[in-house]
Amino acid sequence: MGADDQLPYELFYWPSIQGRGEFIRLAFEEAGVPYVDVGRRPESDGGGAGAVVRILKDHSGTAAFAPPVLKHGALVLWQTPNILAWLGPRLSLCPPDEAARLSINAVQLTVADFITEVHDVHHPIGSGLYYEDQLAEARRTAEIFARERLPKFLKYFEQLLADNAVSNHAFVVGGAISYADLSLFQVMAGLDYAFPKSLAKLKPALPRLCALAAAVAARPRVAAYLKSARRIPFNQKGIFRHYPELDQ
Amino acid sequence: MGADDQLPYELFYWPSIQGRGEFIRLAFEEAGVPYVDVGRRPESDGGGAGAVVRILKDHSGTAAFAPPVLKHGALVLWQTPNILAWLGPRLSLCPPDEAARLSINAVQLTVADFITEVHDVHHPIGSGLYYEDQLAEARRTAEIFARERLPKFLKYFEQLLADNAVSNHAFVVGGAISYADLSLFQVMAGLDYAFPKSLAKLKPALPRLCALAAAVAARPRVAAYLKSARRIPFNQKGIFRHYPELDQ
Repeated sequence: MGADDQLPYELFYWPSIQGRGEFIRLAFEEAGVPYVDVGRRPESDGGGAGAVVRILKDHSGTAAFAPPVLKHGALVLWQTPNILAWLGPRLSLCPPDEAARLSINAVQLTVADFITEVHDVHHPIGSGLYYEDQLAEARRTAEIFARERLPKFLKYFEQLLADNAVSNHAFVVGGAISYADLSLFQVMAGLDYAFPKSLAKLKPALPRLCALAAAVAARPRVAAYLKSARRIPFNQKGIFRHYPELDQ
Repeated sequence: MGADDQLPYELFYWPSIQGRGEFIRLAFEEAGVPYVDVGRRPESDGGGAGAVVRILKDHSGTAAFAPPVLKHGALVLWQTPNILAWLGPRLSLCPPDEAARLSINAVQLTVADFITEVHDVHHPIGSGLYYEDQLAEARRTAEIFARERLPKFLKYFEQLLADNAVSNHAFVVGGAISYADLSLFQVMAGLDYAFPKSLAKLKPALPRLCALAAAVAARPRVAAYLKSARRIPFNQKGIFRHYPELDQ
């Protein structure tokens, strides 16, 4: 352990949503490694959304485009898969083996692609427009999403678990839990909230993915986190939003 | 140089488009490192789109969701930013410094997010639908894209170049060319093809980004590549498509 292990991990993310920050929070929570969720601290204590905006405006290094941003001493990094690839070995959530590490990063990048599509179901025309102003288009997107994209991604993840089960492993890559497994739990939790009907129809074809999600939720530190006030409830401002008209 | 340097780099990507594979091709071309563009070899020689489909169906390791896929001996990796992060140091297109390496990966991930939005301008409802079947929605998306998202991303990249110019560097991160600079060239070339009017209006506010794109295009190996038959022309099947009705 080097001197830099004494430095705090500071996460900068919007305080009111799980969003992309949740993938980082879950990694710290499962590892039991303390982190400062800066955006959720009081404004009077240098926190709040203002702290997130301030770090996006910091041009002393390579400025971030969007949160989450992670600060560790002088090191500032952003983009969720980039943060997780760096944190993974430090939190024992990624094996040192190069091939496994690259596969886990690729799965995480595929999760990132998928959640962008999930978000765009309710915002197909523009993220800056209100949902109500693109409702007709969202209905059309939702139908195609439920029929094509949702099963395509989930069956892909299920197949990865089946392929890895040949070696008697219940994780997506390798023989131990990684941050990609935590992310798959988060995806399933989000889909259960946003698209309960569509997901229920698919679940019989996803036994391993459902088992993985349940196993992650039951891990002692994750279970304690999910029950705590630190877990922001799903709501209508995040990636996963429940509009019944988009889940027919 | 280890024994694995003798192994060929095999790129698996669709043979008819630049697409996401182009970011990988540009890295090899700038580095002057030989690679096999498997999809562009004859079917009779194990190439063609069939070879790309076959590697996606290979479940002996962690299967890829989509191309590009890179094979190097027994190592198989996918997802463009993942491939570039691994290749970068091997092609001398990424500095060994950790902070710079993480920043370059974050910029590449932001390029990936941007080109997904660029693609979705012509396919806002579903990537499996024809353009003609989502033309009305695409017109609406295109207007918001040109007004909000295109300037937001390009001005962000311009600002990164301005921040780095304080140290007299003309690259996006650090003092030498990286794969992220090559990717920014590709983005500007694609936008010049797809949205010439919108880009022309923005160019006066993007002097450093335009200069970077021109400098990359003028590098001897890149210039030779762009003139060669290896460079697939832009067309109406890739990420960047020119529909005049979407560039008003």
